[in-house]
Amino acid sequence: MTADTFRGVNPATGERLEPAYPVTSEAELEAIVQAAAAATRVYAQTSGAVRSEFLNAAARNLEALGDEIVARALLETGLPEARLRGELARTANQLRLFARVAHEGSWVEARLDRPDTARTLPKPDLRSMRVPLGPVVVFGASNFPLAFSVAGGDTASALAAGCPVVVKAHPAHPGTSVLAARAILDAARTCGLPEGVFGIVYDDGYAAGLTLTEHPLVQAVAFTGSRAGGLALLQAAQARPVPIPVYAEMSSVNPTVFTPSGLERGGNGLAGALASSISGSGGQLCTQPGLLFVPSGPKGDAFLRDVAAQLDRTPACTLLTRGIHDAYQRGTNGIRSHPGVTAITSAQASDMGAQAQLYSVPAGQFTPTLEAEVFGPVSLAVRYDDMAEATSIICSLEGQLTATLHAAPAELPALGDLLAAMQDRAGRVLFGGFSTGVEVGHAVVHGGPFPATTVGAGTSVGTHAITRFTRLLAFQNFPDEALPPALQAANLLNVLRLVDGEWSREPM
Amino acid sequence: MTADTFRGVNPATGERLEPAYPVTSEAELEAIVQAAAAATRVYAQTSGAVRSEFLNAAARNLEALGDEIVARALLETGLPEARLRGELARTANQLRLFARVAHEGSWVEARLDRPDTARTLPKPDLRSMRVPLGPVVVFGASNFPLAFSVAGGDTASALAAGCPVVVKAHPAHPGTSVLAARAILDAARTCGLPEGVFGIVYDDGYAAGLTLTEHPLVQAVAFTGSRAGGLALLQAAQARPVPIPVYAEMSSVNPTVFTPSGLERGGNGLAGALASSISGSGGQLCTQPGLLFVPSGPKGDAFLRDVAAQLDRTPACTLLTRGIHDAYQRGTNGIRSHPGVTAITSAQASDMGAQAQLYSVPAGQFTPTLEAEVFGPVSLAVRYDDMAEATSIICSLEGQLTATLHAAPAELPALGDLLAAMQDRAGRVLFGGFSTGVEVGHAVVHGGPFPATTVGAGTSVGTHAITRFTRLLAFQNFPDEALPPALQAANLLNVLRLVDGEWSREPM
Repeated sequence: MTADTFRGVNPATGERLEPAYPVTSEAELEAIVQAAAAATRVYAQTSGAVRSEFLNAAARNLEALGDEIVARALLETGLPEARLRGELARTANQLRLFARVAHEGSWVEARLDRPDTARTLPKPDLRSMRVPLGPVVVFGASNFPLAFSVAGGDTASALAAGCPVVVKAHPAHPGTSVLAARAILDAARTCGLPEGVFGIVYDDGYAAGLTLTEHPLVQAVAFTGSRAGGLALLQAAQARPVPIPVYAEMSSVNPTVFTPSGLERGGNGLAGALASSISGSGGQLCTQPGLLFVPSGPKGDAFLRDVAAQLDRTPACTLLTRGIHDAYQRGTNGIRSHPGVTAITSAQASDMGAQAQLYSVPAGQFTPTLEAEVFGPVSLAVRYDDMAEATSIICSLEGQLTATLHAAPAELPALGDLLAAMQDRAGRVLFGGFSTGVEVGHAVVHGGPFPATTVGAGTSVGTHAITRFTRLLAFQNFPDEALPPALQAANLLNVLRLVDGEWSREPM
Repeated sequence: MTADTFRGVNPATGERLEPAYPVTSEAELEAIVQAAAAATRVYAQTSGAVRSEFLNAAARNLEALGDEIVARALLETGLPEARLRGELARTANQLRLFARVAHEGSWVEARLDRPDTARTLPKPDLRSMRVPLGPVVVFGASNFPLAFSVAGGDTASALAAGCPVVVKAHPAHPGTSVLAARAILDAARTCGLPEGVFGIVYDDGYAAGLTLTEHPLVQAVAFTGSRAGGLALLQAAQARPVPIPVYAEMSSVNPTVFTPSGLERGGNGLAGALASSISGSGGQLCTQPGLLFVPSGPKGDAFLRDVAAQLDRTPACTLLTRGIHDAYQRGTNGIRSHPGVTAITSAQASDMGAQAQLYSVPAGQFTPTLEAEVFGPVSLAVRYDDMAEATSIICSLEGQLTATLHAAPAELPALGDLLAAMQDRAGRVLFGGFSTGVEVGHAVVHGGPFPATTVGAGTSVGTHAITRFTRLLAFQNFPDEALPPALQAANLLNVLRLVDGEWSREPM
């Protein structure tokens, strides 16, 4: 008999956790996808009010799980309790934000062009809007057991768009996933939605995820995780007879540039804030500042010594999984052995936990191997002599989620080339502050040029994420009453619409 | 010496046309792409007013070419003069429409979330907008030498978005392409734009198109043409170290369903209108109604006989190229030899031109081989006994650009399954009328699920097309004056923005 169950592992102790969770069988997986497909039409036709009720109920149910889900996530991930409590609140708020977007309704981007039957070639009545794609597969991420997992942003945005969701639970936190799934399933039941609107699949290997991605009824995939994982899904999706979009958020070292004035302006608190951003959540954040640009010379030296001292005082953290721990060891060894690299922190790689590490390399000895993301609390400072040198390296970097500049405001006009390079290479550019801590809202962009994400045009965080799971559909010369409510002349939903090229909430 | 020039061919006579056009050399191609890349930053920063001036100037220049470009297109494509004059007006209007969109400016979808520094974890100032991707390669299409070629919709939308464009001219109309390119290049010069903002490449083979698609400086590809061509470009773009989007519009048979009441409602004019839609422009339209669903029985028989009679009276047309003519012969032979298919028109395949053809097959004998697009004036009528039978075939079809229903309005509530199938399979659904004649405006969708297009979410016609050539970029905590004008608090551009979740033109 093959192993058909698996267990979470406490990363702090290596202990295998009770209970065992069954791996979803092929037959069960097929039934889950079929149920999602069967729910597609009914769910696509639900009103924004119904979807909003559903998402709000899921948020309430999730919060009601409070202590239980935080305790389980703590056991399965080793992340600090305060971080997990914050993440739970963020996840519930995210569901509520998408509930508001669904309820308000303008996200469908309704467009109406009035007919002109008197024109020589009569002009038709054309009306279009965004419609949901159909069943979406969401992969839970290891590093956010709540906010980027079962009930996370991808799920919230797909459900808000009107797509049934099938989650592939991350095998590192099965118990947390079971609880979060229950919150959504109970909400669906309360709202009288078809059962297939949400499903979840468990597997500690790769088979189920690939089967889902290749399933002909699945219309899109959302993934946050490793570059290898994201690329494997992308390849599978492209090889389908009917390719589908894969929104994978994969890899980023988040270049963070300090000018001499930026160091001065940051003052005493800057080194500590940077150390926190490097090592917070064990550095296991996609926006962790892994690549720093620091001026050569004594001021930069002093700054980095200060950062290193704070990192040395930071207790070693527990990484999420054995696999991540091993990759961290390999990655930091790789940095350490690169020509020209020197260690600033005193940490040694440890078998039990991960001590934060800071390295330095002269810009002239930087090579592309040093821009590979090492997931965990490690950063590399590139020491530059002049801004052209730093700019030229940033121009050569792969696509990034973020790029940050610490400078004096008065310097900005002279830093045009650097700013252009940052904007070219990243989805979010910051002036001051640090790239970690992604604000969930309307204006945020959590995406960026490949390989930060596979579809560099969009975002996986914030309300714009909803558009990923939609396509445009036009209706020509349909009777008004046969149209979806957002396109009917009266605009009873009071959504913002583009009518003959003018945005308005007026009836047509 | 290799052949380094090529000539257009008059498809009506097979005569090779003067003059010969040089094939763009590899070195020239490289210089054109480098110039586009060099123009990227300057052009991306131009105001909507400048881009609008540029596009309007291109429209004026194109119209000024009037007789000359129409005469050349007529010679190179064999399309009727009236059609080409209409296409020229449409192409100029399309440039002007995108000029207005660029000038108005709200298309950048500016979003501003106000900061809250008093919050426990301070909320940052986040502002985002759409920014241009960089150099875009546009492939001219054979069937629209003006509207989907050098100065067509893809070029207009990419230029409006702020992307330099490199066109790969279609080898079937090089002279027309030279003239249209001159209209754009002169406009760029008049507006003082960098030379690289527009370039054009000539090749009568596939090499240049592939080189462009694989070029690391190219950021997106737009294509209208054959399925084989589109898929080859898609594959090349996906195999790049950094994949890029390919917006290919490829293949569609545009299912058109007639209910018995729909036939009645259509009255005497319906057969003639359908015959025109089947055979207009030699049937060489991506929205040509290639697959009809007509009820079994005498009324359907009579209707199809009427359509066939009109098609038989329609003079044979000249197809665009020898290749298209050969494929039309192969395709119609394939339909004719399919079990259960009978010819309703009396046309025989001809060597000199293409006579419109209409075939019929019982729904029970329809197989997927019959849904392959045959480019040219041919349609196949599937005869159904009840609507469930027709609906089930439509559900099984590949993705389509359009789907059309001829029915009585009172029937619509009972046709839910059919309408759902049509909406699921197509990007534009029509109630009455015919799918040919795509209106250029704000609400139109010219796109659809794969393989109608490679990216089923969008449109290649109408103002929404501009978003294809953009990505989202967020600025966090930047000084107001360092931001792009659309994101500055004062909103001097007066664009519609999402400020803290509310759409408004007010200053922040």
